[in-house]
Amino acid sequence: MTRLRDLGAAPGDLPTGAFNAITDVPGVRVGHVTLISGEGPLRPGEGPVRTGVTAILPHGGNLYRLKVPAGVRTINGFGKAAGFEQIRERGVIETPIILTNTLNVGRAADALVAYMLRQNPDIGITAGTVCPVVGECNDGFVNDLQGRHVGQTHVWQAIESAQGGPVAEGNVGAGTGTQCFQFKGGIGTASRRVLDGRFTVGALVQSNFGMRRDLLVLGAPIGKHFLDRCLPEPGPGSIMLVLATDAPFDARQLERLAMRAAFGLGRVGSIGQDDSGDFVIAFSTANPWPHYGLEQQPPDEVQAVTRWAESGPAMDECFKAAVESVEEAILNSMVAAHTLTGRDGNTLHAIPLDQLADLLRHYRRL
Amino acid sequence: MTRLRDLGAAPGDLPTGAFNAITDVPGVRVGHVTLISGEGPLRPGEGPVRTGVTAILPHGGNLYRLKVPAGVRTINGFGKAAGFEQIRERGVIETPIILTNTLNVGRAADALVAYMLRQNPDIGITAGTVCPVVGECNDGFVNDLQGRHVGQTHVWQAIESAQGGPVAEGNVGAGTGTQCFQFKGGIGTASRRVLDGRFTVGALVQSNFGMRRDLLVLGAPIGKHFLDRCLPEPGPGSIMLVLATDAPFDARQLERLAMRAAFGLGRVGSIGQDDSGDFVIAFSTANPWPHYGLEQQPPDEVQAVTRWAESGPAMDECFKAAVESVEEAILNSMVAAHTLTGRDGNTLHAIPLDQLADLLRHYRRL
Amino acid sequence: MTRLRDLGAAPGDLPTGAFNAITDVPGVRVGHVTLISGEGPLRPGEGPVRTGVTAILPHGGNLYRLKVPAGVRTINGFGKAAGFEQIRERGVIETPIILTNTLNVGRAADALVAYMLRQNPDIGITAGTVCPVVGECNDGFVNDLQGRHVGQTHVWQAIESAQGGPVAEGNVGAGTGTQCFQFKGGIGTASRRVLDGRFTVGALVQSNFGMRRDLLVLGAPIGKHFLDRCLPEPGPGSIMLVLATDAPFDARQLERLAMRAAFGLGRVGSIGQDDSGDFVIAFSTANPWPHYGLEQQPPDEVQAVTRWAESGPAMDECFKAAVESVEEAILNSMVAAHTLTGRDGNTLHAIPLDQLADLLRHYRRL
Amino acid sequence: MTRLRDLGAAPGDLPTGAFNAITDVPGVRVGHVTLISGEGPLRPGEGPVRTGVTAILPHGGNLYRLKVPAGVRTINGFGKAAGFEQIRERGVIETPIILTNTLNVGRAADALVAYMLRQNPDIGITAGTVCPVVGECNDGFVNDLQGRHVGQTHVWQAIESAQGGPVAEGNVGAGTGTQCFQFKGGIGTASRRVLDGRFTVGALVQSNFGMRRDLLVLGAPIGKHFLDRCLPEPGPGSIMLVLATDAPFDARQLERLAMRAAFGLGRVGSIGQDDSGDFVIAFSTANPWPHYGLEQQPPDEVQAVTRWAESGPAMDECFKAAVESVEEAILNSMVAAHTLTGRDGNTLHAIPLDQLADLLRHYRRL
Repeated sequence: MTRLRDLGAAPGDLPTGAFNAITDVPGVRVGHVTLISGEGPLRPGEGPVRTGVTAILPHGGNLYRLKVPAGVRTINGFGKAAGFEQIRERGVIETPIILTNTLNVGRAADALVAYMLRQNPDIGITAGTVCPVVGECNDGFVNDLQGRHVGQTHVWQAIESAQGGPVAEGNVGAGTGTQCFQFKGGIGTASRRVLDGRFTVGALVQSNFGMRRDLLVLGAPIGKHFLDRCLPEPGPGSIMLVLATDAPFDARQLERLAMRAAFGLGRVGSIGQDDSGDFVIAFSTANPWPHYGLEQQPPDEVQAVTRWAESGPAMDECFKAAVESVEEAILNSMVAAHTLTGRDGNTLHAIPLDQLADLLRHYRRL
Repeated sequence: MTRLRDLGAAPGDLPTGAFNAITDVPGVRVGHVTLISGEGPLRPGEGPVRTGVTAILPHGGNLYRLKVPAGVRTINGFGKAAGFEQIRERGVIETPIILTNTLNVGRAADALVAYMLRQNPDIGITAGTVCPVVGECNDGFVNDLQGRHVGQTHVWQAIESAQGGPVAEGNVGAGTGTQCFQFKGGIGTASRRVLDGRFTVGALVQSNFGMRRDLLVLGAPIGKHFLDRCLPEPGPGSIMLVLATDAPFDARQLERLAMRAAFGLGRVGSIGQDDSGDFVIAFSTANPWPHYGLEQQPPDEVQAVTRWAESGPAMDECFKAAVESVEEAILNSMVAAHTLTGRDGNTLHAIPLDQLADLLRHYRRL
Repeated sequence: MTRLRDLGAAPGDLPTGAFNAITDVPGVRVGHVTLISGEGPLRPGEGPVRTGVTAILPHGGNLYRLKVPAGVRTINGFGKAAGFEQIRERGVIETPIILTNTLNVGRAADALVAYMLRQNPDIGITAGTVCPVVGECNDGFVNDLQGRHVGQTHVWQAIESAQGGPVAEGNVGAGTGTQCFQFKGGIGTASRRVLDGRFTVGALVQSNFGMRRDLLVLGAPIGKHFLDRCLPEPGPGSIMLVLATDAPFDARQLERLAMRAAFGLGRVGSIGQDDSGDFVIAFSTANPWPHYGLEQQPPDEVQAVTRWAESGPAMDECFKAAVESVEEAILNSMVAAHTLTGRDGNTLHAIPLDQLADLLRHYRRL
Repeated sequence: MTRLRDLGAAPGDLPTGAFNAITDVPGVRVGHVTLISGEGPLRPGEGPVRTGVTAILPHGGNLYRLKVPAGVRTINGFGKAAGFEQIRERGVIETPIILTNTLNVGRAADALVAYMLRQNPDIGITAGTVCPVVGECNDGFVNDLQGRHVGQTHVWQAIESAQGGPVAEGNVGAGTGTQCFQFKGGIGTASRRVLDGRFTVGALVQSNFGMRRDLLVLGAPIGKHFLDRCLPEPGPGSIMLVLATDAPFDARQLERLAMRAAFGLGRVGSIGQDDSGDFVIAFSTANPWPHYGLEQQPPDEVQAVTRWAESGPAMDECFKAAVESVEEAILNSMVAAHTLTGRDGNTLHAIPLDQLADLLRHYRRL
């Protein structure tokens, strides 16, 4: 797997974490299940299948018992992401975050509920309800979208296989069949360290947006050089962005961080297409919230926690970390991807890395 | 079925529509599927079952092909309602509105997607995606919530059986197992005519919120008179509210209308409990939006439509109609309900109508 | 000054604080300046004057140096309240809250800036900017609104005269010329103690909304009994609501608390008239935020604070406290008011207290 | 005055309007008043003065009588912009848009109210209230911010001198004392034509944000080449962005358009600094709303208007036009600016155009 930095390119100024991945935030885990089967003409409901599921776990414990602070921002709401209302209201995430394809959100949400029920048999009986968090992109150009091929076993497997360390990118998991700027896109990730390495901000994206002519790489107008190449149909758009940090941000501060994803999108050339669902979920691993049952009082209503001082310079460093991580995660999703042919012979071409490198040199970006 | 007005009580000042129901808005249809089976101890995943599904159709045609203007407001976001992000962004609803129980949202959304695919085989291939709209309450006090017993056949049946005219209330459809102020609640509806009958505003609710001590009926503190009666466990709360009108409101104006549901909730004594998901969906049947496919241009980007002038007095009449309809719909959901026993013998008692009438007389409200 | 409880009426269930006022929250101070001069025909820009200013101080120190957590909710945005954008973003208030009349917001904001500059001479030089918070109602039925008669001396005087303890209500300060349900309204306040007296929630309102026919007092349809009385012109609406607590709510939790004001409004009969600016500002006196200058880093980015556990039952008690305080504060604003004649002989009649008491008895609410 | 295109650079793909300015939207007018006086040490409240006011008029008539559809988006709410609550609720602007410095918002709002009163003597008497719209940046690095030197005569003069055609940029009006990426910034504008010239989208910005190291010009990392130059203190940030179009967008669609400004900001290197108030106001000149007085009914509640079909491709072209206009307007604000020395000898250096051109050539962007 090639990453952007393997080409010698490095967006931004801040240092990366050890893996340059969302998993550099201690405790965060990622798991993928990739579904590829069948070839030839689309038989709606049957195949070919080019899709998958990606699970992001804020920590390795029981997320329902120990929820994490979270905030969301909808940059363009043309999408079917699940769980946002409750995150806005209560400021926490209480399940793994599941990414998949757009028509599969209902099934994935149901599978996630089932997983949480197995882990917490008191849900819906004495413990209250559970709010599944699911994001999506439309991979219908290569995938039998109507088939909703991601089932419970895949969702559970993605969760259970999630681990820290390096994260597979490109045509994996929920990024198996997605495109980015009419090249092959998919899963990408990156991270930045802030305050002299004291904290980390990481991003993971499922990229599926953009018109080729608009693509910018490190600011260079790369897309325009590939307009004569076999273009797929205009992409239906969308990008899911997940941000993680171990800085003690509360829900409001995480919403602020999430908003900065828009600048990272701008840097690679997004215009927020009309039918592109651009959603950001940001969470912190600090100051988790224990679960209390229906009529269960906490030991004391007033708890000792920490708070991020939110002074300008340090906040700016976190914001910059989010912008840079998003920019690099999107570019990684393209660089790591490889050409994929799906239903009806529809093909998503990987961006040619040698030519990309040449162009970056031409634009003095390498 | 008894309704509030059968007791001689009539909240508000405005005249009702013919059926005093959301179906008084021309074209609107409602269908219920009620699921009751099993008795005795809870066997998680098996039963007993006390739940159901309610479908609200803004019109009788293909909603994907002719979407309706819509707006949402989240009064308390502790809930799992699906589809809100896209309604906010694009200002339309393109599927029936499905109400069911909280852990069943994923399955109901998937069933709704399947229904839309059958009706529109181009979705996910050439027509773009589809955004299912699903609301929910927690009926776990009497129902095997973990079982998610509402399946595709139930959702489809609710949609296909939907009709205009009188609407069944109380223990039906998505209201089968819900409670309201610790009495039996369920589905309720009401309507008001505005501008001398020129337009109609209607409400339908799935009620499942409130502590008994807080219940107000026509402003009278009715709940306090029933504190010695067999109280169920404190309700987990939530209410789904659907508002319809044939006045030519656009999405922004519908969001304003939706906000007024909070005043109707206030009138019956709600305090918006912490874990109560209070969600409002408002739509207009005027000025529907035709669907355009992925790269399909409309005949002309500029269309002739009508616009609601939004002058104070007429808008106030619509707002009042929304408040009164919500208040009466909630009360109807209780008055029409009957006592129900579910899992583990848990029983939700209907509010005793004779005593309610006596108390209303005592408080000079009849 | 008569208050609602002097009639024997007491909305809600929770105990009040010592003064049944927003000042029961330790540290909170309120100051009024009432401006009444001139009589007879309106001479725009000159008089008669029936207006004023009310200042609410979250604490008695320098609010710029020690900001307080805050959240806002706009129930109906038809108004000119200042400062909301920054409160939403940063979750703090850094000035006194000033209430005045609608066309006077600019001048009051400027006066408040001037006050903050005197107190903090580094603002705009080395300390950053300052965000004045101003709310308003339209008292133009009796007041020369165009004259914008509230000047810097009045704003400063309101701030400097602010104190704890009992709060003057009715025709005082920013409530001097306002109406409520077409009776004389004005300033009202109330409070509730929660968690066995451990914390307090208080409300202060500037009431100026509603049609007489809609008025509910303790749920009883009082307004309809006064429709034959000299009605003023329909009010232009609006209500400013300020909520305070010493429970350690953060900004998100304060937004949740603020939303509950809508239920209190519903209880007294509001329908949220089209041209009524209904704005809520909620703050906590716990966990204040020190100010850091432009490039000034805090001693450490991570601070030790407390957090409200946000478990259902305790949160519900706070929500109920907000609803009850708002309901009672609005009613106090009317009960404490007295008849006032202003420009062009326009008269706002106080609600007749003896008849109000009789009617409450009739409806068995006393 | 030099503009970006005078250097041979042209961001984006779409054609500009005749003046490449917001005034290319028919009817839109812009007026500036520039205030420069005094030199030497800061005497707070007295000078030196380096500030001003810019007025944007959606049309040349009485805006109160004929309001225009409008939408706002707050990208970062650390700012004091006035009027946003009412724009969100009612979806219209009813005054000129005034830009000035941050501590001057109150005075400017008051001056704008006074202007509207002169034009509409029934405001506050029989016509309802008026909602002034004011944006701001902090020019305190060179200007005596505490002095609030923009008075009523300046605001009125900016409005009355507003005209169509070419727009002065750089150190003019509200941009007199602002900085951008620690260079001299100010006012900038640009426009794009869409749908084969059928409609126009224009942008005007008051730029005052960014750290030099982050500046991108046409994607090239220009800022890093100037880090050894005399850097001013870190900027306090903020940018006000105004978007105009003659396409018949409604308020919701204008909010969508406004959101795209974030991508334009991303393209020039913004990270949305913590203390940067980044606010967008978008309006359409199509389908204006007549004013109705307090109890005045319109001739008919249902009006004939046009509606933007909001199909993907055409909407994308408008979104792209907004992104490109914002990017170019920001760059124009810098290119057109010239070096300015203000209080305490503080100097904001204009970006050296010859070196900028050289660097753009180096990066193959010319």
